[in-house]
Amino acid sequence: MKIGVVGLGYWGPNLVRNFLGHKLVEKVIACDLNEDRLTQIKVKFHGIETLNDYQKLLESDVDAVAIATSVNTHYDLAKQALEAGKHIWVEKPFTSSKAQAEELIRIAESKKLNIFVDHTFLYTGAVRKIKELIDDGELGDIIYFDSVRINLGLFQHDVNVVWDLAPHDLSIMKYVLNGKEAVAVSANGVSSYNCLENIAQMSVHFKESSCFAHFHVNWTSPVKIRRIMIAGKKKMLVFDDLVYSEKIKIYDSGVEFKSPESIHNALVQYRTGDMYSPQISHNEALSSAAKEFIDSILEKRKPLTDGKNGLEVVEILEASEKSIKQRGIPVYLNNHTV
Amino acid sequence: MKIGVVGLGYWGPNLVRNFLGHKLVEKVIACDLNEDRLTQIKVKFHGIETLNDYQKLLESDVDAVAIATSVNTHYDLAKQALEAGKHIWVEKPFTSSKAQAEELIRIAESKKLNIFVDHTFLYTGAVRKIKELIDDGELGDIIYFDSVRINLGLFQHDVNVVWDLAPHDLSIMKYVLNGKEAVAVSANGVSSYNCLENIAQMSVHFKESSCFAHFHVNWTSPVKIRRIMIAGKKKMLVFDDLVYSEKIKIYDSGVEFKSPESIHNALVQYRTGDMYSPQISHNEALSSAAKEFIDSILEKRKPLTDGKNGLEVVEILEASEKSIKQRGIPVYLNNHTV
Amino acid sequence: MKIGVVGLGYWGPNLVRNFLGHKLVEKVIACDLNEDRLTQIKVKFHGIETLNDYQKLLESDVDAVAIATSVNTHYDLAKQALEAGKHIWVEKPFTSSKAQAEELIRIAESKKLNIFVDHTFLYTGAVRKIKELIDDGELGDIIYFDSVRINLGLFQHDVNVVWDLAPHDLSIMKYVLNGKEAVAVSANGVSSYNCLENIAQMSVHFKESSCFAHFHVNWTSPVKIRRIMIAGKKKMLVFDDLVYSEKIKIYDSGVEFKSPESIHNALVQYRTGDMYSPQISHNEALSSAAKEFIDSILEKRKPLTDGKNGLEVVEILEASEKSIKQRGIPVYLNNHTV
Amino acid sequence: MKIGVVGLGYWGPNLVRNFLGHKLVEKVIACDLNEDRLTQIKVKFHGIETLNDYQKLLESDVDAVAIATSVNTHYDLAKQALEAGKHIWVEKPFTSSKAQAEELIRIAESKKLNIFVDHTFLYTGAVRKIKELIDDGELGDIIYFDSVRINLGLFQHDVNVVWDLAPHDLSIMKYVLNGKEAVAVSANGVSSYNCLENIAQMSVHFKESSCFAHFHVNWTSPVKIRRIMIAGKKKMLVFDDLVYSEKIKIYDSGVEFKSPESIHNALVQYRTGDMYSPQISHNEALSSAAKEFIDSILEKRKPLTDGKNGLEVVEILEASEKSIKQRGIPVYLNNHTV
Repeated sequence: MKIGVVGLGYWGPNLVRNFLGHKLVEKVIACDLNEDRLTQIKVKFHGIETLNDYQKLLESDVDAVAIATSVNTHYDLAKQALEAGKHIWVEKPFTSSKAQAEELIRIAESKKLNIFVDHTFLYTGAVRKIKELIDDGELGDIIYFDSVRINLGLFQHDVNVVWDLAPHDLSIMKYVLNGKEAVAVSANGVSSYNCLENIAQMSVHFKESSCFAHFHVNWTSPVKIRRIMIAGKKKMLVFDDLVYSEKIKIYDSGVEFKSPESIHNALVQYRTGDMYSPQISHNEALSSAAKEFIDSILEKRKPLTDGKNGLEVVEILEASEKSIKQRGIPVYLNNHTV
Repeated sequence: MKIGVVGLGYWGPNLVRNFLGHKLVEKVIACDLNEDRLTQIKVKFHGIETLNDYQKLLESDVDAVAIATSVNTHYDLAKQALEAGKHIWVEKPFTSSKAQAEELIRIAESKKLNIFVDHTFLYTGAVRKIKELIDDGELGDIIYFDSVRINLGLFQHDVNVVWDLAPHDLSIMKYVLNGKEAVAVSANGVSSYNCLENIAQMSVHFKESSCFAHFHVNWTSPVKIRRIMIAGKKKMLVFDDLVYSEKIKIYDSGVEFKSPESIHNALVQYRTGDMYSPQISHNEALSSAAKEFIDSILEKRKPLTDGKNGLEVVEILEASEKSIKQRGIPVYLNNHTV
Repeated sequence: MKIGVVGLGYWGPNLVRNFLGHKLVEKVIACDLNEDRLTQIKVKFHGIETLNDYQKLLESDVDAVAIATSVNTHYDLAKQALEAGKHIWVEKPFTSSKAQAEELIRIAESKKLNIFVDHTFLYTGAVRKIKELIDDGELGDIIYFDSVRINLGLFQHDVNVVWDLAPHDLSIMKYVLNGKEAVAVSANGVSSYNCLENIAQMSVHFKESSCFAHFHVNWTSPVKIRRIMIAGKKKMLVFDDLVYSEKIKIYDSGVEFKSPESIHNALVQYRTGDMYSPQISHNEALSSAAKEFIDSILEKRKPLTDGKNGLEVVEILEASEKSIKQRGIPVYLNNHTV
Repeated sequence: MKIGVVGLGYWGPNLVRNFLGHKLVEKVIACDLNEDRLTQIKVKFHGIETLNDYQKLLESDVDAVAIATSVNTHYDLAKQALEAGKHIWVEKPFTSSKAQAEELIRIAESKKLNIFVDHTFLYTGAVRKIKELIDDGELGDIIYFDSVRINLGLFQHDVNVVWDLAPHDLSIMKYVLNGKEAVAVSANGVSSYNCLENIAQMSVHFKESSCFAHFHVNWTSPVKIRRIMIAGKKKMLVFDDLVYSEKIKIYDSGVEFKSPESIHNALVQYRTGDMYSPQISHNEALSSAAKEFIDSILEKRKPLTDGKNGLEVVEILEASEKSIKQRGIPVYLNNHTV
């Protein structure tokens, strides 16, 4: 397997390192327009081949191209790669619009090529454990998914905070709640500095009206929080990604109704029970992602985070942006209506 | 000063205790329909006068009536008290609708009586300190107010989570951001158990478009959080009401732009500086509230938390409820339009 | 049952309240030399009988006397009460010396009277749960008990920090490790202000040389910590008394040796496994303590926290004080020698 | 400057990396008996020179030798290096005994060579800030230093937990309290598994009797804590090395006496005031240490962490070990007596 990596900014070098570390990868070609970055990557990965021309990369013998450039270039670079017969790995978010994502999926299918969208979180031990717990019915029927990803972070100049941070949490939501169909998004946000939105609050409504999801993303929070709460009718789970141990806590606490009419007649009863925190694997997620990418190509199957997965996330991002511009007006997804 | 307290459920006895503890209060009459509660209050406050008939309370010589009954009864009881010439203290939320609040204010004004709405938080040392810091310009121009008040709490059977929990945070917001005019609300929520909404996410938009507020209230969270973040252009503040010391932290961290065009050309620069936590007073807020109520009557002036204050909070609650029913559609406040 | 309470400072009124709340207590007499305190207690507990003369209390018809005065008066007051035929409840620490404790036990036994020492912590849900877990073998053989009880607290003028704070933790240790025999104490401390010691570090050695206990007590710590760690060969437990939920956490983490010789040849292997936090009861401990006191008298049996229990704690306190004066020299307990 | 690094276990490769990163270092030779480690280091630092024979390293043209082998080999390797005319860098702890340390210092002085002991913590932004605050009198006269460094860690097979973990905290204490003279050590510990001590509690007494230090080191704690508290008569400081931001907190809380006699007559008064957390530098400490080592050689002066500094730490370690074997008996330092 030979792989080209285009875009050697913040994330690209991590891709180079992980592909180089995979036993079936015989060659990695690093590509960027910026000569300084090419020089740096050569120092870091002694003897790596580099190119400053994307066309030459497409003409080379690489089997796949990993695209780690800014979002607005994903579609063009990905389309050219697919047309050149290369499998593609695309950083999150997949594309800038649902239409772009759909077109790339069509091209890939017609050419029997793989699209891998780098929703890295789905390859972490923590998210794997959460998926397993939900699938095993440990939490019972899910009633809400609540995510907070806030920080004093760097503003991106090409995308707002929704496109920058929410793909992580949306991809986790789609993965762990894969039986629930999202039907509408209502989002609110603000641009505090006359530039792109730096804070957003996004609500997702489901076909099943008892389920609800919410996402808070913020580049201007004095405290850093990365926490997802998922409540089921039986148990509730909290995933705190900023602690090293006890990342996941499961609370045996839930609401109980003594009789059908009790809801309207009296205060609901709460159980408060034990809490436990399962051990989770600390393997590097990106290495598992690289393995899945390569395995899926060799096994001629779709990867876990395929184009459709990328598209579903982009659809919600696009709807959120539309809703924010109209102060929370609900935007319906995928042919759903009021 | 003689005061009647009607409604001896959870909060009423605290009112009795605080009024009894005020040096100018010579008599407190406790009133409830439930004889058991009257018996209990007599045991607890030896020798207190009780009544099981609200009309008799209104006919008595009390100067003021404190109403601590369920929300849907506030308007009727308050109206009768005002018409009987009594000053009123009303538990939060003031009324069930903006129209009710407006009518009570009109009656009180015509009769030169005081309305006090029990937004207790405004009498805490912490909120006083926050107000002082903002008024002194310590934080700079405010860009957002973000509140989270979630818990594994008891469902109320008469009001949803918005009417139950949000009055606290809305009253704090109105108080500390009193120069900013709210123009629209977009809210989303869910009723996970076929009863009233147990989770809500509320966004408030301001006339000043760079400012934004958000409120998360939830009765079904496995973890308890009571945290308000307020970011200004100079500094940011976090108020965590669940810790005993260091309730307020002020971060000397903010966004800085090197030149006007830098927003569009480059990543924003962050300062990370010192943090400090001011000492705050731990006096009982309800005792300060009782003092303000009595002082305002004696000094023939409006109290800090007057009817208008109560009305402003009710207006947002009402708008939120309307918006939730339409999945986040923006509801405009107070004659504002798109 | 009629009970007298002598000493109405900080703790005495809590005893009055709890005894009054017990269904078998028909009368409580409150006794103090200070007339102001007698006036206050009458206001708080309407109609309670008071006395300003301890002799009169002893001559009254009370069955038992609860002593909540300063430590140096415990022995005299307790002795007089026993000699007057009253059962006694004594606040912690039991007495000022081992010799005093032994004499009181002798008198009580000869007169068939009960001694109850108020080691309140043994009546909390948390300590009960810890005892249960250890007795059930959940932790395996215990290798250490480590306690930290530090605070920015008030200096006591009659006793140092060891006598003030350590009785809590020593009584817990004696209770939960009741199969392990303490043989020696080595303690170090300091008096930072030319008064009594305000910091102390106490090590307790056991007959079983693989077991060890340590206690850190401090009145001058900027942060408040109340944490006990207990490690067994199978599991480890952390009890944090300052959090409301998750007070106890049990870690399935322990040391494992692959073969007998591995200890000397290689690094020890660690397991890191799940953590869980059991639900514990939040009943008021003092109320359970009052119940045990009264039950033990009526059932003519010794209470859980009897004189012997009090004596064992006093013996370690006395040894610690002796050791501190000699900079940690080991002081042997109860006829043990080097 | 040419530097040899001997010992390529856990820490040695970090030394290689930091020396290679220093602009005045023209060559680094890596030396180990183990051929696998030599192969690995060549992969990691492409083209680095290696040797499997320490004698050949001493015969080479290196100016200095950094010794990162196990503690019991430090003295022999250091002595040979000094006798071969090389400056030395020695990992902590400096040597296995005070006598060894004294001899190495004598040799280095006679040959005008530098000894650098790698007490890395003294080169961190946090410890530098603490030193600065104490030297500026911010805390007032220091009354205690309390360190906790506990973890579920790997057992070392050649040294006990005191020699493994305490050098960090002892070197910090010597640095920040450099005006206070330690006179005696009392230590207690346990070997829970029939191997070397895995828990130790060490008290250090000072000439100034109002000052006191204590160290808790533990390889078998279910929770990881790395916290130092330093209390002065004016303010108190907490250094928590496990948090990223707010590592240092300074509390404006202290004890106050109203009059000289108040200590004996009444409860001490406490002030509780503001807390603040200064910003600290996050530079890599090891890089600053490497710079100090090289600068001190070039400037022909002693480094901050010189042989004497290493010796002072070793002296306390040796005394602690002696005290532990006698259950806390005080061991006097440096010609001090009772």
